[in-house]
Amino acid sequence: MDINAVKQAIRDVPDFPKPGILFKDITTAIKNPEIVSFLSKHIADYYRNKGINKVAGIESRGFIFGSILALQLNAGFIPVRKPGKLPAETLKKTYSLEYGEDAVEIHKDAINPGDIVLLHDDLLATGGTALAALELLQELGAKKVYTNFLIELEFLKGIERLKEYTEVYSLIKY
Amino acid sequence: MDINAVKQAIRDVPDFPKPGILFKDITTAIKNPEIVSFLSKHIADYYRNKGINKVAGIESRGFIFGSILALQLNAGFIPVRKPGKLPAETLKKTYSLEYGEDAVEIHKDAINPGDIVLLHDDLLATGGTALAALELLQELGAKKVYTNFLIELEFLKGIERLKEYTEVYSLIKY
Repeated sequence: MDINAVKQAIRDVPDFPKPGILFKDITTAIKNPEIVSFLSKHIADYYRNKGINKVAGIESRGFIFGSILALQLNAGFIPVRKPGKLPAETLKKTYSLEYGEDAVEIHKDAINPGDIVLLHDDLLATGGTALAALELLQELGAKKVYTNFLIELEFLKGIERLKEYTEVYSLIKY
Repeated sequence: MDINAVKQAIRDVPDFPKPGILFKDITTAIKNPEIVSFLSKHIADYYRNKGINKVAGIESRGFIFGSILALQLNAGFIPVRKPGKLPAETLKKTYSLEYGEDAVEIHKDAINPGDIVLLHDDLLATGGTALAALELLQELGAKKVYTNFLIELEFLKGIERLKEYTEVYSLIKY
């Protein structure tokens, strides 16, 4: 098992969620236990010995390996969610989309000043969601934030918006 | 670390998501790495040696330990999602709520006939969502489905709707 085998197991779905978009579907990869195991170890190994004590996963697909990475790195798991989903007091960040805007929230008590956080999502597209999540983590006092994606769509240049604030590692690039 | 310590770390949030409901918030528990580690091992140990080869997690909170359990049990991970979220061909099941209805979907190629599946969600309330997910798994040919919840709200009697079709294990009961 290697990254190339994972890449081959990812399914291309044309015109999802809207016409003209070629969606990278990881479900065909992660139904294979060997891929779950390989990705878990590979990403966790990359982030060991960095003092990470919290892993923040972005709803919903970011919960999948976010929680696994929390376990593997002996860190706590923090959900970053869409507005209205977290029950206690939150901090919210709105960001622009191509048409309109969206927002993410985090519980105010999710991060302690000085925390070293790994922010995880499955996909880096334009970087808007990750940047908003990163800002929330920083506002709550995170000392350092590393950012990981399973997949990076390089042609959308999301990395340009993030690299000033966080070290990004993406496994698979298109 | 034991189940009682996990129970004490779960936060009660009154009137969420609507007035009169006392929400059981696991985020205060799972930001503690010892709890993530304890729950992962405890639940996985319970399900070892049952031949489970797929773990299905129900969106969104069911993805958190669903994916961890897939890793721990050397199984594939299958997302059960709200309508319109899965990109490829799906099977959909509609179920009744107190007011109105809701639905869940699964990819048609998620399950192979003969699969032994662990269905996981964070919370068992009335059991409507889990029952719909269970029916999807069975329609796709799962040979046996075990069902696990972190929390069971016993007074809602969800277990009565499920126990005929699946063996249920819930860690924490209220």
